[in-house]
Amino acid sequence: MSQDLPFTLPALRAAYAAGMRPEAVIALAYARLDATGDDGILIHDARDAALEAARALGAPDDRPLWGIPFVVKDNIDVAGMPTTAACPDFAYLAGADAFVVARLRAAGAICLGKANLDQFATGLVGVRSPYPIPKNALDPAIVPGGSSSGSAVAVAQGIACFSLGTDTAGSGRVPAALNGIVGLKPSLGALSGTGMVPACRSLDTISIFALSTPDAWEVLSVAQAEDPQDGYCRPMPAPRLAPVPPKLKIGVPGRDSLVTDGDAVQAASFQATLTRLRTIGAEVVDCDFTPFHEVARLLYEGPWVAERTAALGARLIERPETLHPVTRQIVSAGLSVTAVDLFRAQYRLADLRRLCTEALAGIDMLCVPTIPRFVTCEEIAADPIGPNSLLGTYTNFVNLLDMCGLAVPCGLRADGRPASVTLLGRAGADAQLAALAMVLEEGPMGATGWDRPPAPVLSGQAGAGELPVFVCGAHMSGMALNGQLLGLGARFLRACRTAPQYQMYALAGGPPDRPGLIRRSHGGQAIAGEVWALPVTAAGTFLAGIPAPLGLGHVRLQDGTEEVGFICEGLGAETGTDISALGDWRAYVAQKAAARAPVAAASK
Amino acid sequence: MSQDLPFTLPALRAAYAAGMRPEAVIALAYARLDATGDDGILIHDARDAALEAARALGAPDDRPLWGIPFVVKDNIDVAGMPTTAACPDFAYLAGADAFVVARLRAAGAICLGKANLDQFATGLVGVRSPYPIPKNALDPAIVPGGSSSGSAVAVAQGIACFSLGTDTAGSGRVPAALNGIVGLKPSLGALSGTGMVPACRSLDTISIFALSTPDAWEVLSVAQAEDPQDGYCRPMPAPRLAPVPPKLKIGVPGRDSLVTDGDAVQAASFQATLTRLRTIGAEVVDCDFTPFHEVARLLYEGPWVAERTAALGARLIERPETLHPVTRQIVSAGLSVTAVDLFRAQYRLADLRRLCTEALAGIDMLCVPTIPRFVTCEEIAADPIGPNSLLGTYTNFVNLLDMCGLAVPCGLRADGRPASVTLLGRAGADAQLAALAMVLEEGPMGATGWDRPPAPVLSGQAGAGELPVFVCGAHMSGMALNGQLLGLGARFLRACRTAPQYQMYALAGGPPDRPGLIRRSHGGQAIAGEVWALPVTAAGTFLAGIPAPLGLGHVRLQDGTEEVGFICEGLGAETGTDISALGDWRAYVAQKAAARAPVAAASK
Repeated sequence: MSQDLPFTLPALRAAYAAGMRPEAVIALAYARLDATGDDGILIHDARDAALEAARALGAPDDRPLWGIPFVVKDNIDVAGMPTTAACPDFAYLAGADAFVVARLRAAGAICLGKANLDQFATGLVGVRSPYPIPKNALDPAIVPGGSSSGSAVAVAQGIACFSLGTDTAGSGRVPAALNGIVGLKPSLGALSGTGMVPACRSLDTISIFALSTPDAWEVLSVAQAEDPQDGYCRPMPAPRLAPVPPKLKIGVPGRDSLVTDGDAVQAASFQATLTRLRTIGAEVVDCDFTPFHEVARLLYEGPWVAERTAALGARLIERPETLHPVTRQIVSAGLSVTAVDLFRAQYRLADLRRLCTEALAGIDMLCVPTIPRFVTCEEIAADPIGPNSLLGTYTNFVNLLDMCGLAVPCGLRADGRPASVTLLGRAGADAQLAALAMVLEEGPMGATGWDRPPAPVLSGQAGAGELPVFVCGAHMSGMALNGQLLGLGARFLRACRTAPQYQMYALAGGPPDRPGLIRRSHGGQAIAGEVWALPVTAAGTFLAGIPAPLGLGHVRLQDGTEEVGFICEGLGAETGTDISALGDWRAYVAQKAAARAPVAAASK
Repeated sequence: MSQDLPFTLPALRAAYAAGMRPEAVIALAYARLDATGDDGILIHDARDAALEAARALGAPDDRPLWGIPFVVKDNIDVAGMPTTAACPDFAYLAGADAFVVARLRAAGAICLGKANLDQFATGLVGVRSPYPIPKNALDPAIVPGGSSSGSAVAVAQGIACFSLGTDTAGSGRVPAALNGIVGLKPSLGALSGTGMVPACRSLDTISIFALSTPDAWEVLSVAQAEDPQDGYCRPMPAPRLAPVPPKLKIGVPGRDSLVTDGDAVQAASFQATLTRLRTIGAEVVDCDFTPFHEVARLLYEGPWVAERTAALGARLIERPETLHPVTRQIVSAGLSVTAVDLFRAQYRLADLRRLCTEALAGIDMLCVPTIPRFVTCEEIAADPIGPNSLLGTYTNFVNLLDMCGLAVPCGLRADGRPASVTLLGRAGADAQLAALAMVLEEGPMGATGWDRPPAPVLSGQAGAGELPVFVCGAHMSGMALNGQLLGLGARFLRACRTAPQYQMYALAGGPPDRPGLIRRSHGGQAIAGEVWALPVTAAGTFLAGIPAPLGLGHVRLQDGTEEVGFICEGLGAETGTDISALGDWRAYVAQKAAARAPVAAASK
C-alpha cells in the first residue's frame, strides 16, 4: 500500500498520523527515484543523510513540514552537500543552508538531494547540463524544461512532495507546464536569496514546485520571511489566502495576438481554460501584450544577459572550457555590453513598465498560456537557442515587471498533453493568484496517477485588503445600519458568538437603538453577532461614524479567536439597560417591537 | 520704492494687490540683472517675451503664481527659447514647455530666461561652462556653485522670485548653500522630468531655489503632478504641510566623523544649528555615515558616470571638441564601464541601501552640512575635480538612496559667510522637511538684504481624506509606537488635552507600555495628548494592530470638540494602575525610566 502513498501534504500527514515512519517515506522516495531509471534528476543523491535526518526527527510533532521529502535545485545551498550549478568545476561544499532551505528544514522537511538544472540557471529547456539530462516525466521526447529541470521532474514523478527551483526568466514555470505540475514563482523579494547562486541577482527568486497549489502555498508560507542579509529581500504581505472574490477581471492575450507558434491544440486548450474562468464568474478581457513582449525581449536580447555574465565572474574569461557550450555562447554576449547600453535599456524598461501598468489598470490579474507549445529534444538539439526563446514568450517579462506568477495545471489538452496556464499578478498579489489557482487546477498531477486532493474551502475568511469586523447590533444583516456596511463594500463572512465574557447593554439614546458590549473578568454571556469583511481602506470612514460610548477594538469570539469589533466604554453601562440574558440584539429588538406593536409582531 | 520691492511671494502679492503691474515687476527684474553687471547668470535673456507675457496677464486673478518672475536652468525646455545645456553645439529651440514649466506658467509665473549651468549638469562648482561664469552673489572669490549656478545666483541677487534647477548629485543644494538661499530637492519622481535634458535619468530631478522655504514650497505645490509620459514620475503624497511634531529624532554626523575638510568655522556653525534643533525640541543623535559615504562614492567614482555618458549619446565620440574639457574628461570615463561593472555596483548599492535603512531606523530625518566648506574660484582653477568632489560629500548619496532634501539658510557663520544645513528624509517626506526648515531658517536671504518674511503658522487641521486621531500614549511623537503612525502616512496636527473627564491607567502587559483612558461621569482629569491626521484609508490597518482592552472611539477634548481617539474597555482599569494624577503619559514613562536607571538618567 505504501508504494501508492501519494506524496502530497494531506496524504503524507495522514500516513504519519496513522503511524508511518519518515524513514519509510524516505525509502519510498528513493525507491521511486530508482524506479524511474533516470540518473539525470539529481546531481547529488543524499539518501544516507536523508535517512539519518528522518531517524533524527523522532516522534511526530506539529511542525508544518514534519517528515516531508523535498529536493533542492543545485544552485541553492544545502549544508553538507556540494553546490554545482551544473558546472562541476564550480562545485563547492556548502557550509550552511540557504536561508530558505534552513526554514524548510527547521519546519521538519527532509532534503533528498540536489537537482539538475540548465547550467547556472541559464535556459528554459533543461538540456544545458554536463550531467545526464533528466527525462520529461510525461514524454521523454519532450524536453524536461528548465532551468529547474530536475526539481520539476522529481515532483512530477512523485519522488519529492515539493522542490525548490529558481526563476529569473521562467525557470520556475516552464518546467511545471512541461511536466504537468504547479510552479509557484513568488513576488521578487518574498523569499530570501541568501545561499542561492545568482543568475541575474536583481531578477532572481527561489520558486516552488508541487503537485497541487495548496501544497505549494503551504511551502511558501513556511519559506517566506524577511532576511536582513539580502539587499533584494523586502517586506511582503503575510502569505494569507483569500477567497476568490465574486467578480474578478482577468486580462488575457486576445485570440488574434495569442502566441502558440501554430499549435492549434494549445490555442484551443487556452480558450477552454478561459471558458472555465468565465464559469467561475470572472470577466475575461483582451489585453494589449505588445509592451509585455517588448519587455520580454529586453531580458535575453538586451543587456540583461550581462547580469548573467557578471554572475560568472572570471570563469568566462579564465576557464571558458568549464562551461556548457550553449551557456558559454549566450553568456559571452554579455562581455561586450556597456554600462551605457544598460542604462539606456533601463530607461526603456521604465517606460515599458509605465505602459504595462496602464494595460493592467482595472485588471486583477493576467492569465496566459505558460508555454506557447511543447518543444521536443530533437528540435532543441538542432537549434539550442530558438525553441528555448519561444518557451519564454509568456515568462520572460514577468520578473522585469516585478510581477508574481503561478503556473497551474488545467487538465489535459485534446492530444493528452498537460494543459497549463500561468496567473500573473502585481508584486504582493501571490495570495490572490493562489486562491484562484486552487479553484482552477484540475486533471492529473504530473506522472503520478494520484487523485488530486479536494481544494480547501476558503470561505468565511477575510481576504487580503479586508478587515474582519464583528458586529452585534444595528449593523447586522437586515438591521437598521447594515446599509452602512454594504455601502462601504463589506461582505458577510459568518454568524458567530462572542466568548462567554460579555454583558450586553441597550444604550441610552437613539434612534437607532444600539447595544454596547462590556467585557467582564468574571461571568458574562456569549453574545450573538456576525463577522463582516470590510475593505481595510473603508474602516476609517466606518469608525468616524461610530458615536461614543461605542468604538472599535478587539472582541473575543466563541471559537477562541479575536476580531476587530464593537467595544463600549464602561460609561455606557451606567445609563444603559443590561440585556445580556437575551444573548442576542435581535431578540431585544423583537421584544421591544412586540411590546410596542403586538399585532404587527404576531402577523410576522 | 519699487526698487526695493522684495521678490518674495508675500511681497509681490502685496504689491499686485496694491495695483502694481507685472510689466513693472519684470522691468525691475531686468534692471536688477543689469545692475549686477554679471553676464554669466543667463544664457538666454528673454526680456521681450517676459514683458509680453506680463502684459498678456491682464487683470489680476487668483492663480497662485500670477505675475511671479522665475528663471529656468538651461537644461529644461521653455517653449520658444533655446535649450543649450551649456553646450552651444547642442542647442535646439524648444517647441514646448517642459511639463513642470508648463504648470508654473499656467499658474501665472513669468519666465525671465534660461540660466547658466555646469555643462550637461555635470559638476557642483558652476565654472564648467563655455559661457561667462556667473559670479557668486555673496563673494566673487567663491565659486557660484553648480551645476545650477545661474538659477541660484538669479534668486540670491533678487532678480527672480524663484528658479528651477536640477539635482542629480547635489546641483539643487550646493549652489543654495554657496549663495545663502533655499534649495528644495524633491523626492525623485515628484516632479516630472519631461522636457529636461537628462544627466543621470534614473537619478535626476528638477529642483527649486527660492529665498525662503515657504516660497519654495508653494512653487513645489504648483509644479507637482503625475505625468504619465515620464517613466520615472510616480505618485507622491500631496504637498501638504503640517506643524513640526514636538519630538523629532534627527540623525547627524557625529562630531568625530563630521567632514569639513579642516574648516573649524563650518564645524562650529553646524554645531550651532544642532543646538537650535535641540532648542526646538528635537533629539539629535549621532549616526554612522559610513554606508552613506560609500554610496556617495558610487556616483562619481563608480559606474554611474556612464549614465552621464549615455545621456551625451554620440557627441562624446563624434564631436568631443564641443564639450567643456573638464566635462569631457569626466564623462569619457563612462565609455569604458561595462554592464557587468554596473550590475555589480547596483548589487552593492542594494546592500548599502539596506545598511542605510537600518541606520535610519527610528530616525525622522537627517541633518547634515550642505557643504563641507567653501571653495574658491582659484582652487577650482588649479584642480577642477578635487574640490568639486569635496562639495558633494553630503549631497552625492541622496538620490541613489531615494531621499528628499532641503538646503536651508541658518544665519551666518562666525566669518560672515552664510550657514546652511540640509535636511534629508525618506522619499515622500518632503513636507516634513519643509515644516522643520520653516522653523529653522534665519538670517539674510542671499545678497538681497531684504527682511525674511515671518514663517507661516501651519494649520493644525486635518484635510480631506484625513482622519484626526487623538493619541495619548506610545503613539505620541518620539514615543515607542510613533513610527506606526508615520509609517501609515500620518502627520502631526497639534498637542492638546482631553476634557477633564478621564482617568488614565497604566495597563497591565507590554512592552510596549500603554495607557488606557477611561471616561467618567463624575470627576476625572484633563489628560495630555496629540492629534495626528491619519489618511482615512489607513485607519483600518492602524485599528487592526491595537490590542484589547484598547480601541478607537471618540474622545472629548478640552476645547469642547470630539475626535476619534483611543478608548479603553472598563476591564483595563481592573488590572491597570491609576496614573491620572500625572496627567501625561510622558511623565509616567519618564518617572519609570528614572526609577529604573537613575544614574544614566542623571548623567544625561
